[in-house]
Amino acid sequence: MNAPRELQLGELRFADFTRPMDEAKRVELIAGLARVLPQAALLTTDEALRPYECDGLSGYRQMPAVVVLPTEESQVVEVLRTAHRLDVPVVARGSGTGLSGGATPHRGGIVLSLARLKSIIAVDPASRTARVQPGVRNAAISEAAAPFNLYYAPDPSSQIACSIGGNVAENSGGVHCLKYGLTVNNILRIRGVTIEGDIVEYGSAGLDAPGLDLLSLVIGSEGMLTVVTEVTVKLIPKPQLARVIMASFDDVEKSGHAVANLIAAGIIPAGLEMMDQRMTQAVEEFVHAGYDLQAKAILLCESDGTPEEVEEEIARMKESLFASGATDLRVSETEEQRLRFWSGRKAAFSAAGRVAADYYCMDGTIPRAKLGEMLNRIAEMEGKYGLACLNVFHAGDGNLHPLILFDAANPGEFHRAELFGAEILETCVEYGGTVTGEHGVGLEKINSMCVQFSPQERITFFAVKRGFDPAGLLNPGKAIPTLSRCAEYGKMHVHRGALKFPDLPRF
Amino acid sequence: MNAPRELQLGELRFADFTRPMDEAKRVELIAGLARVLPQAALLTTDEALRPYECDGLSGYRQMPAVVVLPTEESQVVEVLRTAHRLDVPVVARGSGTGLSGGATPHRGGIVLSLARLKSIIAVDPASRTARVQPGVRNAAISEAAAPFNLYYAPDPSSQIACSIGGNVAENSGGVHCLKYGLTVNNILRIRGVTIEGDIVEYGSAGLDAPGLDLLSLVIGSEGMLTVVTEVTVKLIPKPQLARVIMASFDDVEKSGHAVANLIAAGIIPAGLEMMDQRMTQAVEEFVHAGYDLQAKAILLCESDGTPEEVEEEIARMKESLFASGATDLRVSETEEQRLRFWSGRKAAFSAAGRVAADYYCMDGTIPRAKLGEMLNRIAEMEGKYGLACLNVFHAGDGNLHPLILFDAANPGEFHRAELFGAEILETCVEYGGTVTGEHGVGLEKINSMCVQFSPQERITFFAVKRGFDPAGLLNPGKAIPTLSRCAEYGKMHVHRGALKFPDLPRF
Repeated sequence: MNAPRELQLGELRFADFTRPMDEAKRVELIAGLARVLPQAALLTTDEALRPYECDGLSGYRQMPAVVVLPTEESQVVEVLRTAHRLDVPVVARGSGTGLSGGATPHRGGIVLSLARLKSIIAVDPASRTARVQPGVRNAAISEAAAPFNLYYAPDPSSQIACSIGGNVAENSGGVHCLKYGLTVNNILRIRGVTIEGDIVEYGSAGLDAPGLDLLSLVIGSEGMLTVVTEVTVKLIPKPQLARVIMASFDDVEKSGHAVANLIAAGIIPAGLEMMDQRMTQAVEEFVHAGYDLQAKAILLCESDGTPEEVEEEIARMKESLFASGATDLRVSETEEQRLRFWSGRKAAFSAAGRVAADYYCMDGTIPRAKLGEMLNRIAEMEGKYGLACLNVFHAGDGNLHPLILFDAANPGEFHRAELFGAEILETCVEYGGTVTGEHGVGLEKINSMCVQFSPQERITFFAVKRGFDPAGLLNPGKAIPTLSRCAEYGKMHVHRGALKFPDLPRF
Repeated sequence: MNAPRELQLGELRFADFTRPMDEAKRVELIAGLARVLPQAALLTTDEALRPYECDGLSGYRQMPAVVVLPTEESQVVEVLRTAHRLDVPVVARGSGTGLSGGATPHRGGIVLSLARLKSIIAVDPASRTARVQPGVRNAAISEAAAPFNLYYAPDPSSQIACSIGGNVAENSGGVHCLKYGLTVNNILRIRGVTIEGDIVEYGSAGLDAPGLDLLSLVIGSEGMLTVVTEVTVKLIPKPQLARVIMASFDDVEKSGHAVANLIAAGIIPAGLEMMDQRMTQAVEEFVHAGYDLQAKAILLCESDGTPEEVEEEIARMKESLFASGATDLRVSETEEQRLRFWSGRKAAFSAAGRVAADYYCMDGTIPRAKLGEMLNRIAEMEGKYGLACLNVFHAGDGNLHPLILFDAANPGEFHRAELFGAEILETCVEYGGTVTGEHGVGLEKINSMCVQFSPQERITFFAVKRGFDPAGLLNPGKAIPTLSRCAEYGKMHVHRGALKFPDLPRF
């Protein structure tokens, strides 16, 4: 056995996440940034910084030293050079809709908002690509491509608000990623800036690029490797028709097997979602989607393509779903009905917010065959932790979004919700799945990464990180736990400790 | 501007590629390997080593110090620990069919053949995956999956012989990768061994894995990061029907635009290949595929799916091809005829070998819209270099395989072929494409990487490489050119120098 590699490599030096910036240094930083940015692009007052103190993981809040809002790539370069020169951490931010705290500020750091880099540079129907700046909203790309009958496929629930830069950072998915892939499957090229202020490009106009696949590496890297300034996305033709089946099941385990059976039958639905009974009930009151409230679980199963393809596929889907024990099937007859069926799914998180004071949205993956078993395990955990859980899954790709309900006003409930969530994630790993499906690791999942990866694997993460960012200034403290953090989490875990990030303010 | 990062990081220490091993050290190495391997797994005599002196890039030959043929992962671990302890470079080898010299031995190094790790560990129709060892042949996976009506999609021309481990190393493509993706799109998980002998796993059973995407990074890394010992592949349902259109064009540029128009019309053919007239003529004599020998170029355009889908798609393809100026279309009426149409394409390289003493198979990519223009540029280069070139392209994904014909017996012809090839690759980069589509960089393309990537980007490659392999012992000298090599190539290039790897024996 060799000497442990950690002794050879060490860990990245990370800025203390919560340490405030020395006031003299802050003055120097502001002066340095003022030299390279127009006045409107530099925010420094408490009032101006406040909206940036958290992203969608609003339980974690922290004020940054400054926020910058460049409007040009050359300004991004200058900001990063300034940060590098003064040894200040930087977190890039898109629309701030991320759910795992990837854009949570560092108290002594810069928030680099890319929201004002929002040009659609080109839409090229011949190559079926669009070149856009990182602040462009996900949905805006499809809007710009619509005149050519094209669209950008990945569709996170937040697509009206979230930015393509944020999607790249988190490798976002969506309802249609089972058929059309995640962000990583829909991006051809990225242009970015290193922490030293050098321009880099990864990927190519073609299907593949020579050398190491740094494009895939940068996608999903949560702002730790490169600040993205331009994204070339694939566009795909809009299907002529889409129809969705709502299938009812009198047993959650049967609905799980129905998903596995559909896929095993060679059907790849355009979308395949599962909701349990309490979820449909919470939703139905709110949006009247027309769900079967007697069913223990429902599946939404979509087919898209030409009318002939859809007709043929819907028939095969119905056959497979009935064979798996569906008690009832309804197929959308009009586009209006299809959108109504989906409206309930899309409103699931908001509905959870209506039936409980607080909810904790989990995000993990498991093999499809384990879906039913997982639902039963979650039901047991509800008893154990004394908290209810609504379940909504991107079932086709085994991506779970259990919504744990709690009331932060009741002492101990948030803590129990965290323990509940941690047990769900560890069960995902036990089943051969992962601790995050599409929301990223950020701050939220950082301790669960200790369960998912071996020390050797985490050391490789750091070594790769250091290859891009030797100074350790790009979003330090996120996504990859240090060895000492994991050692500490291991100890806490033995005592059934919480997924706690000790020094940050909480709910 | 910061100090150049190269001064901070340096470059990886690379073993001299062609330096023979000191005899005393070779004895120590053989003794060390003999302790951890059965006798049949350790080759040391000239006669036994000879078959391993090259891969499919047979112009580059070099005898390794030893060849090892482990039959178990634990032996791979011990071999790597021994290599690490004794500071000996290691090149992993699959079936040796690679075309870019990725498996060319190091004179003072170990060839680690994975050919005897050839078990199909599991085929799971429910999750539509197979778990296999790296030495399993590409085609053998589909054979094992056939009873479940499933198959493994990526189909390099060498699929009867090439191994899945080699496919992973080179991120292999094939005729069907336009619709079904490259190797990287069809692999879920990889198990491997680091140079220190530690077991690592990348990827997951799900669609995504948390943390940095090391799975995609390892795929296509040409043996430089990890020695792969197990691969979990996706299986997909066999289409019920496939039909292929042979379309004739009286002008190469029109055929190129036809490809771009098909894709722009929202059609994604299961395969879309182009051959020019001299290619079809060379092939037809040999395999009688039934090609239109009057056409300046032909396209083979395949549709697969259910009978309804195929009928509808073939109709749309025909319409688009006629609109793009096809002079004649023939659609396969039987499976036998479909296979005959493809037989010519699959025999293209062999046919080139029949009409010329030697040929140099190029591999680059360009945006589809540039296909016709590229064919005209290549025609100009034929005059410039005084050599003929047959053209066969994976047209749908813009992947070119020009076959430059020459006779190594004629002084200067190979040199001219190399210059011709280098100009093709540089034209690919000029058009926004890349210097390799699917054959990898290996030794062959290493100088072209200087054209493709900036020093900053190459430094990042090395930094990532060092993250996985700090000792620099896994396939050193391949795929990523050092800064000094690029500086030298730049000088040679000014003088119209060759893509030469000076100290290796050549044709």
